Amino acid sequence: MRQLLLLSLLFDVVVYFLVSTFLCGTQLFDSPQIMKLSQIQTPAALVDTVVMNGNIQRMQTYVSNLSANLRPHVKTAKSVPIANEMNEAGAVGIAVSTLKEAEEFFSDGVSSDIMYCVCIVQSKLKWAHDLIQKGCDLKIVCDSVVTAQHIAAFGVEHGHSFKVLIEIDTDGHRSGCPPDTSLLLDIAAALGDVHGVMAHAGESYMLSSPEALQAMAEQERSLTVLAAERLRAAGYACPVVSIGSTPTALSYLSLDKVTEVRAGVYVFFDLVMFNIGVCSMEEIALSVLTTVIGHQPEKGWVITDAGWMAMSRDLGIPGQPDFGYGQVCSAAGTPLHAVTMVSANQEHGIITCSDLDALKDHLGSQREGETVFSSVEHMSIVDLLPVGTQLRVLPNHACATAAQFPFYHMVNSSGEVTDKWERFYGW
Amino acid sequence: MRQLLLLSLLFDVVVYFLVSTFLCGTQLFDSPQIMKLSQIQTPAALVDTVVMNGNIQRMQTYVSNLSANLRPHVKTAKSVPIANEMNEAGAVGIAVSTLKEAEEFFSDGVSSDIMYCVCIVQSKLKWAHDLIQKGCDLKIVCDSVVTAQHIAAFGVEHGHSFKVLIEIDTDGHRSGCPPDTSLLLDIAAALGDVHGVMAHAGESYMLSSPEALQAMAEQERSLTVLAAERLRAAGYACPVVSIGSTPTALSYLSLDKVTEVRAGVYVFFDLVMFNIGVCSMEEIALSVLTTVIGHQPEKGWVITDAGWMAMSRDLGIPGQPDFGYGQVCSAAGTPLHAVTMVSANQEHGIITCSDLDALKDHLGSQREGETVFSSVEHMSIVDLLPVGTQLRVLPNHACATAAQFPFYHMVNSSGEVTDKWERFYGW
Repeated sequence: MRQLLLLSLLFDVVVYFLVSTFLCGTQLFDSPQIMKLSQIQTPAALVDTVVMNGNIQRMQTYVSNLSANLRPHVKTAKSVPIANEMNEAGAVGIAVSTLKEAEEFFSDGVSSDIMYCVCIVQSKLKWAHDLIQKGCDLKIVCDSVVTAQHIAAFGVEHGHSFKVLIEIDTDGHRSGCPPDTSLLLDIAAALGDVHGVMAHAGESYMLSSPEALQAMAEQERSLTVLAAERLRAAGYACPVVSIGSTPTALSYLSLDKVTEVRAGVYVFFDLVMFNIGVCSMEEIALSVLTTVIGHQPEKGWVITDAGWMAMSRDLGIPGQPDFGYGQVCSAAGTPLHAVTMVSANQEHGIITCSDLDALKDHLGSQREGETVFSSVEHMSIVDLLPVGTQLRVLPNHACATAAQFPFYHMVNSSGEVTDKWERFYGW
Repeated sequence: MRQLLLLSLLFDVVVYFLVSTFLCGTQLFDSPQIMKLSQIQTPAALVDTVVMNGNIQRMQTYVSNLSANLRPHVKTAKSVPIANEMNEAGAVGIAVSTLKEAEEFFSDGVSSDIMYCVCIVQSKLKWAHDLIQKGCDLKIVCDSVVTAQHIAAFGVEHGHSFKVLIEIDTDGHRSGCPPDTSLLLDIAAALGDVHGVMAHAGESYMLSSPEALQAMAEQERSLTVLAAERLRAAGYACPVVSIGSTPTALSYLSLDKVTEVRAGVYVFFDLVMFNIGVCSMEEIALSVLTTVIGHQPEKGWVITDAGWMAMSRDLGIPGQPDFGYGQVCSAAGTPLHAVTMVSANQEHGIITCSDLDALKDHLGSQREGETVFSSVEHMSIVDLLPVGTQLRVLPNHACATAAQFPFYHMVNSSGEVTDKWERFYGW
């Protein structure tokens, strides 16, 4: 029996090792070792930790100063440690765009205060209810009488009263009930009880001046408050008034009568946000690290290993300044303004340079005054960005680009990789 | 001690259960139960198994009839069971677009005969070598003297001779060495030994007539063969001549002197391939199942739960017929030609209908002659596609859309879900 016990204990030890290594994905990929960018495989999603934490702090401070709560939208990063950073900065609950996100962030202990911000539909009520039964304080959203009836009927059948917010359309962007019609009261009547109203001014993505953004922000606020006041006048409690988008969230002059602000992409920012004017290029925390794998010298093409799978197919918003597939930077993160990622296949990027002298000067100055290039007369793109060169590319849309990667390589202010943080995807 | 043993054995049983449940991901998601589409959560990636197997058989037969081997490109589906279906149909080895794919498909036993079809770079040689050391018969590709030198130097250092194919540029699409220049022989000289030549006529995606496709296919074939013959004349063995893209692979009139054809997207096909003319809409095996979650009646908008995250941001090829974010179909898969997915946010699709009568007639006829709609005078999109309606959307580009999903829901000819097959992503 002693041998049996020893065998069994030995098995336990082996199993413990295997389980702790393979089952705990987060631990598996934690690297206690600091690595240089040149040591990691490309393409890779880099997140500048200092820049990201600055972005988190900036939004938290802006909203807190206007006396509202911040409910970060975790759909951008879809990463538990990043959501935890937002919580630590002072966030109150989280917003999600899928029930999968609610499930993951709740079960990983990020928060139980979760608002699922896409109108629910009857076929998803059981999943939502299951989450609530497990202890998640899930809030759901609807904008139609028919779904309100489904929610109420499900509630009666299961002896449960969902916390429901009515989505308000303040800018004609996509979903939502107009704030000033009878439909609002019809939805409330079908629900019986109204937890709150919520709106998202997605049309703010089409703007680019502070004045226009401030006007859109005030429109989002005032029309959502109007809806809440109409509901209260009709006898509904409607304690929550929730609004937000990254551009409006940084443009409110007042958050009077608003209880909370939701925003997501600010955690990373991106070229669309840069074009709108709510961040500088230095505040973009996410980039894709890529390696030059070849050239077509006669065409002036540099071929890289980051194609549209790594950058996503998102080409930004028509009418805004065009960055192709993203802003090409040096490996250290300095934008190379003459260099453009003009085209992409699945695993190939094509980069061109409109001003070789500017690129040469830039690269020369980056090497601390060394005259590495100045002696060469007819400098070509092949010499300036040789095979093996690493580059960073800033994304047009952080939500789309981040979604292509299972991990973020977290980078410190010295450009070293300090951690590998998991993210999830899918539905 | 007996208690200790019992406790230890109990622990073993629990651990066995946990490990078998959570560690074996494939088993976890296998469902022995056949489900209706109405029972699955949306958005979901559906694969029509009968259509997919027809596509696999069609390509295999076409290439086999021209006496060449077929090396399927597994970058489209990135799914072990789907790659196994291709193998069973007669494929010889696989082509991959990343070393991650090589690693996954080799370790899962799909094939050890793998060609990594993107030009390698020095920083990836160790990973490639590690795979070869584990038993993978990995072939790599290069198109520059500098990388050829890196490969040769790595080989000398590690006592290993890589099997290297030189990429040939036959259409100016992206990478590759021209077939008729001295560069080809310079690369060969740097390598010392040449396993073969390979080309991909990506410009075939810009064509749409059988004659133009046949001409492009013959150009791809003849120029790659020319490169092989020049190398052989210079004393290199160059046994392999590998060419292919889905449009050219279905357009060769001859595969004389070609040893193998590579193609990928044919496994699913998509609207780009439909526009090029190499498949019918009925041959598109991949679709995204979505649910109507709301309306904006005054704008004629139907809001669904499949946005650009589910469809991808791929809007097809400029100049080709425009399907918006994809061709909307009934849940049963019949295209609704008057219905268009005109816009998308991350988790919202916006669908409009240009001809309500046509949609009404179509939906009426789908319900086997029932006059469900004919009695209503002023039929609106809200009545025709009410909240809760499921729709399928055919993708513009299967590779981009499939990549957003962790699973495929495999659908039989009766439209029932028979299996849930895993796919992977990332690098």
